[in-house]
Amino acid sequence: MPGDDRCIAVFDSGIGGLTVVRELQRRLPNEEIVYFGDTARVPYGIKSGETVTRFAKENCDFLLRFDPKLIVVACNTASAAALPALEDSLPVPVCGVVEPGAKAAVLQAQGHTIAVIATEGTINSDAYRRAMKRFDKDVRVVQKPCPLFVPLAEEGRRCDDPITRAVARDYLDPIVRLDPRVLVLGCTHYPLLRQAIAEVTGDAITLLDSGEQTAKAVVHRLKQSDSLSARDNSGRLHCYVSDNPQRFRELGQRFLEQPVVDVTWISPEQFFAHDPKVVV
Amino acid sequence: MPGDDRCIAVFDSGIGGLTVVRELQRRLPNEEIVYFGDTARVPYGIKSGETVTRFAKENCDFLLRFDPKLIVVACNTASAAALPALEDSLPVPVCGVVEPGAKAAVLQAQGHTIAVIATEGTINSDAYRRAMKRFDKDVRVVQKPCPLFVPLAEEGRRCDDPITRAVARDYLDPIVRLDPRVLVLGCTHYPLLRQAIAEVTGDAITLLDSGEQTAKAVVHRLKQSDSLSARDNSGRLHCYVSDNPQRFRELGQRFLEQPVVDVTWISPEQFFAHDPKVVV
Repeated sequence: MPGDDRCIAVFDSGIGGLTVVRELQRRLPNEEIVYFGDTARVPYGIKSGETVTRFAKENCDFLLRFDPKLIVVACNTASAAALPALEDSLPVPVCGVVEPGAKAAVLQAQGHTIAVIATEGTINSDAYRRAMKRFDKDVRVVQKPCPLFVPLAEEGRRCDDPITRAVARDYLDPIVRLDPRVLVLGCTHYPLLRQAIAEVTGDAITLLDSGEQTAKAVVHRLKQSDSLSARDNSGRLHCYVSDNPQRFRELGQRFLEQPVVDVTWISPEQFFAHDPKVVV
Repeated sequence: MPGDDRCIAVFDSGIGGLTVVRELQRRLPNEEIVYFGDTARVPYGIKSGETVTRFAKENCDFLLRFDPKLIVVACNTASAAALPALEDSLPVPVCGVVEPGAKAAVLQAQGHTIAVIATEGTINSDAYRRAMKRFDKDVRVVQKPCPLFVPLAEEGRRCDDPITRAVARDYLDPIVRLDPRVLVLGCTHYPLLRQAIAEVTGDAITLLDSGEQTAKAVVHRLKQSDSLSARDNSGRLHCYVSDNPQRFRELGQRFLEQPVVDVTWISPEQFFAHDPKVVV
């Protein structure tokens, strides 16, 4: 097997995509990963589809300088808004988080109602429902934005914090009453609040992390195209951010579940440079 | 009195600065106001001082096209990070929200402890404490970031909402125990949560809205320089945003306390254009 030792590139609006990286690293420990967090323009969830698409294209232009074999759009909002545009314009394969999450949800729901929680932007785009309809045209989907979950996770509130629990009940009680079989965590921050969410939804509702499903899809795709790395040593994770590397390092550990060591700030001049040699 | 009919320009990271505009309009109903909300890059409160300063300069470059007589930095984070840089580089007077809030707090505290609540960025900059020390070198200041207050206000949670009340208690109970005489609302979103905050702080602590103090400072400054408008009809409010005008209109009403009618989206090409005729 020749393999492909080029990196996997991942971008997110900020720090949340590290939960997707964590799932990738569990499955593909030898792969080199280059991550870009757009911390100067985070969050994407309250922004328009047009603006998020522009940001996503710029992020991919930046990541192409690292000659990746695949780009993972780890941000649900960017996947929802920009994936078709990225697939059309990029010279490498692109994998978003919405489609893998939607597919797994349809399979597990077996005809029962599916609930999706995500940012305002992801919900307004209706991308999850549209993706689910491609797998089951009669699917019943209920969707709800949960804007407080991201700042709760970033503030470091634990799942047993009274505020976290109260917010989870407030958002999810009305969803539970609709009796879904599956609840999709449609934002990369939400896995950090998984226990608080599960406490409200109970055992009868399966929680499904789109990031985890995406990692599985990436493994499948690389295997199919014979593009897994042939290296037998551990792949490294290189993080680049458009702002505040210190905050990224501090908060990142909870998302990656290990220290985030290699974080480099990219200035606007570097980010928007047309000369690819400016970085790398 | 000749007067000066040029507009007052105001910018904020997003929508919160409309609470400052509201206070300006109450006192100066005849003034024309041009507002820029940087909704494509909002929020500023979790970003570095360097990045916020760059954004603030770009916002002012945009506003200068409207030939303002004064620029109000309605964003606490931007005032904290960028005011000296803006004062050095701009050809018109600039008024931030930190200094007026700090000055009023020192006057009202009469030597007692002052508490400041604001975004992470404003607190980390220590700008309020530094400004207060210029008015009283022995001032005692306690500061606390309250990151959930902005999304609570934007989500439209009322002050009697159980989540709002629980978060207010969680943030403010430890502050109340330090027995401050004055609590500065150091973020333009916080006046929307004023009642919930007051419920925790009680009658012995004076709540001080930096935006309101800034409006007073602007009136004083324009009077002193004989630059109030000589018009006797109502001044209009023109809003420009870098993203999502619809969301700005919808949420804006609660911040301005009246409908936000005139909102124009500015594309990146318009925003960064060097030709000032591109807008206006």
